Amino acid sequence: MSNTKPKTAITPTRDENYPEWYQQVIRAADLAEPSPVRGCMVIKPWGYALWENIQRNLDERFKATGHKNAYFPLFIPLSFLEKEAEHVEGFAKECAVVTHHRLIEGPDGGLIPDPDAKLEEPLVVRPTSETIIGAMFAKWVQSHRDLPLLINQWANVVRWEMRTRMFLRTAEFLWQEGHTAHATREEAVAETLLMHDVYAQFAREEMAMPVIKGEKTEAERFPGAVNTYSIEAMMQDRKALQAGTSHFLGQNFSKAADISFSDEDGGVQHAWTTSWGVSTRLVGGLIMTHSDDDGLILPPRLAPAHVVIIPVTHKAENPESVMNYCRKLADDLCVRPFHGRSVEVEIDDRDIRGGDKIWQWIKRGIPIRLEIGPRDMAEDSVFLGRRDKGHKEKQSMKRQAFVDGVVDMLDEMQQTLLDRAENMLKANTRVIDNKEDFYTYFTPENKQQPEIHGGFVWAHYSGEREVEEQIKKELGVTVRVIPLDSEDKPGTCIFTGKPSKQRVVWAKAY
Amino acid sequence: MSNTKPKTAITPTRDENYPEWYQQVIRAADLAEPSPVRGCMVIKPWGYALWENIQRNLDERFKATGHKNAYFPLFIPLSFLEKEAEHVEGFAKECAVVTHHRLIEGPDGGLIPDPDAKLEEPLVVRPTSETIIGAMFAKWVQSHRDLPLLINQWANVVRWEMRTRMFLRTAEFLWQEGHTAHATREEAVAETLLMHDVYAQFAREEMAMPVIKGEKTEAERFPGAVNTYSIEAMMQDRKALQAGTSHFLGQNFSKAADISFSDEDGGVQHAWTTSWGVSTRLVGGLIMTHSDDDGLILPPRLAPAHVVIIPVTHKAENPESVMNYCRKLADDLCVRPFHGRSVEVEIDDRDIRGGDKIWQWIKRGIPIRLEIGPRDMAEDSVFLGRRDKGHKEKQSMKRQAFVDGVVDMLDEMQQTLLDRAENMLKANTRVIDNKEDFYTYFTPENKQQPEIHGGFVWAHYSGEREVEEQIKKELGVTVRVIPLDSEDKPGTCIFTGKPSKQRVVWAKAY
Repeated sequence: MSNTKPKTAITPTRDENYPEWYQQVIRAADLAEPSPVRGCMVIKPWGYALWENIQRNLDERFKATGHKNAYFPLFIPLSFLEKEAEHVEGFAKECAVVTHHRLIEGPDGGLIPDPDAKLEEPLVVRPTSETIIGAMFAKWVQSHRDLPLLINQWANVVRWEMRTRMFLRTAEFLWQEGHTAHATREEAVAETLLMHDVYAQFAREEMAMPVIKGEKTEAERFPGAVNTYSIEAMMQDRKALQAGTSHFLGQNFSKAADISFSDEDGGVQHAWTTSWGVSTRLVGGLIMTHSDDDGLILPPRLAPAHVVIIPVTHKAENPESVMNYCRKLADDLCVRPFHGRSVEVEIDDRDIRGGDKIWQWIKRGIPIRLEIGPRDMAEDSVFLGRRDKGHKEKQSMKRQAFVDGVVDMLDEMQQTLLDRAENMLKANTRVIDNKEDFYTYFTPENKQQPEIHGGFVWAHYSGEREVEEQIKKELGVTVRVIPLDSEDKPGTCIFTGKPSKQRVVWAKAY
Repeated sequence: MSNTKPKTAITPTRDENYPEWYQQVIRAADLAEPSPVRGCMVIKPWGYALWENIQRNLDERFKATGHKNAYFPLFIPLSFLEKEAEHVEGFAKECAVVTHHRLIEGPDGGLIPDPDAKLEEPLVVRPTSETIIGAMFAKWVQSHRDLPLLINQWANVVRWEMRTRMFLRTAEFLWQEGHTAHATREEAVAETLLMHDVYAQFAREEMAMPVIKGEKTEAERFPGAVNTYSIEAMMQDRKALQAGTSHFLGQNFSKAADISFSDEDGGVQHAWTTSWGVSTRLVGGLIMTHSDDDGLILPPRLAPAHVVIIPVTHKAENPESVMNYCRKLADDLCVRPFHGRSVEVEIDDRDIRGGDKIWQWIKRGIPIRLEIGPRDMAEDSVFLGRRDKGHKEKQSMKRQAFVDGVVDMLDEMQQTLLDRAENMLKANTRVIDNKEDFYTYFTPENKQQPEIHGGFVWAHYSGEREVEEQIKKELGVTVRVIPLDSEDKPGTCIFTGKPSKQRVVWAKAY
């Protein structure tokens, strides 16, 4: 970092260029970077630790709702993909196809696929696992006593995306996919909605990211599903991010894979199945919900570390005593329980400039920074900066008061982030009851900064797919969800004038 | 299970047919099963929970030694594999090659790889990640201040094996791969040996599996490594299982990928790198170390659950009071800490025959089974069976005494399993000082049961690769390791009569 400190740590700012700001936040926080493999990213330790915290918390929630983890093959034979008609359409297009199982030296000395080792049936790297898991479920489910079957898998999947963006859309990504089978439609629907709720609660409680819950329209439904439910969050550019989906698959996949069971009356029925997933995309959502022009801001409940201690020893007569004071402080903090783990502390004693260290930690989004020098030690205090406040707003606190209050402080920061995100969502949500206002709202006023505009619009819609497609073409706006639990009354579609059951939520989306 | 109970729960027994016994133990314990994808297995919930416990424990050990997790791409461009000459030889042969990124409908209506979507450069599904991680390290390492770089990845990898066996050798498997870079040879060697130790300690302390630590000969070295260190365990058929390896890679990979750094004197040097890994193969090792002719036996420290409570309510006047007694007991057990987690309890209240339940849990290897009926409740006691004892050796215990003693009981069982495995290893290890005895020892006496014979032989060997290859061809026996920390003195090779520095360990191996 140069001596002439820029006004903000991230260039460009959100207002100047939102998409580029996003990439720069990731780079500055050392979360991830592009790899030499087209469309694939490398998740670096700070980003992976964040994902591990997301995983651990979700995994507990899945287990608490009765699910067990298992692991299924990476590869799917072509014939499996062909079984469910809509699913083929949706997933068989852009995917990685394995055609050979050996390399040999080619004519110019390099390696080439061995023509003698061509697979009889090509394999696809899983874009999602309904088909292969369905084939196993067909073996595991025989009797009604085998149901419900509640399985989750943590895995990597590949979809050959043409335009990629780190965390939001990459060719390979990490995710979990839940797959369940039930004896009745009602149970499967209840499961679908339960996991939809689990996702919404996780987003709100852990990510401090409020979401709108609802059902997808036909155009945005998972290929092969009867109903798709989604949680949608508002990013700071006012676009929507689909952050998690839960699908009621009816009997489509159970019929394709023949998942059938003998019921209590001795009859044979097809099971009812569901699937649901969230991915490393959540990391992108977290970044775009909270971060500012100085970089990443981490909600404390998911932060890889909560407190960094930066010893300031260059003016100390006895640097080792300052270090000991810091170590003792870290020990005192680490035993404080914080939502199922402990307060986690980093001591940054690297031999680089103090100012650079502080800015690195600001950009990495750590909730609390402590700078501790001889004077702080003499006064038995800490000098503290919080990531939810401006970088100049620092304060001195008595050491013991800080230690005793650290958990409350982290909880308060978590709440502050949630409040800010909710205010953002409210401030940029409109009920619009005529087409003209709708079009005006989604047309950028400022051509210099076309990225940040619009928001979430609740508007009546009579449900014709052509109408939705026309609006998508004209404005880039789609129905994000038909909200659940809405108290909205029936009305008139603002596009067709036909009756509408309730308002739906429209937005531009990632 | 039929009413005429077989003498053993697993057919065939180990003596009758060891390889088939192994497959049947996996099936009976519901750990995994073959998938419709050639060479790939499905890891079922009980098996995956075991792997999760292995992962969690190892992950803590890696973090405690300063490593951080990250994630790198699944795909490796062919050109990367070509960079390190020996590595190409070792890994470029049998692997999954991705050549297309899209499917289209073929002439007969099925899906085919789209000829218009052929990749310019084919991608290989990673068989191991030295090359792609090396490319990233080359970017991350600039200065000596960036070293050491200590990274671990949990991932799936694919090696196109022709003969597969569940957990031991599958086309896709799950593993961790550590990759580190250091400023000096000494530091990299120390890291290699440290992780070798971590594996040996894990095997002994958690898996209750004693191992021999040592270095591999040239013939068994990792392709591209300078030194490969391995831990080798003895299975119950007396064959060796290579359970974990740690490689000192010298500067081979850092030169191939150009991982270089400016040192403190302003010069530029290539880093020294290491890699180390263990995989789901450990599950196979665990099975073959402890299980018996009634099925799986789980070391308590890694068992997915420690205690199963089987309510026996069919004769109860008040079945609900028995259930409440069981639930209260489970609550009392679950709060007992056991090596970083809690005692984990299953209540099996399924509506199936009690005898079937008991046998299912025996075959699944759960450490402690409790059958609890009205009389046990009346006496405030539990009726207990332990998996480390015969299935008929059951005992009644006072409830509170059992609860207070459960952790000690589990620790005692863990120790018993380790003792048994150590006795097995000792009983089947020989020092052999002449060639004829060596050949006799490794030739099965009983042609009816050729699988179980031999063991580990310590014998002097002068190190010629041709000699080792000849013995491998004749007997199927190889040098498993050149033991570390051996107090062995120099001697004479039993095959060549030439001088030998120390005895090495020979065995048949998986």
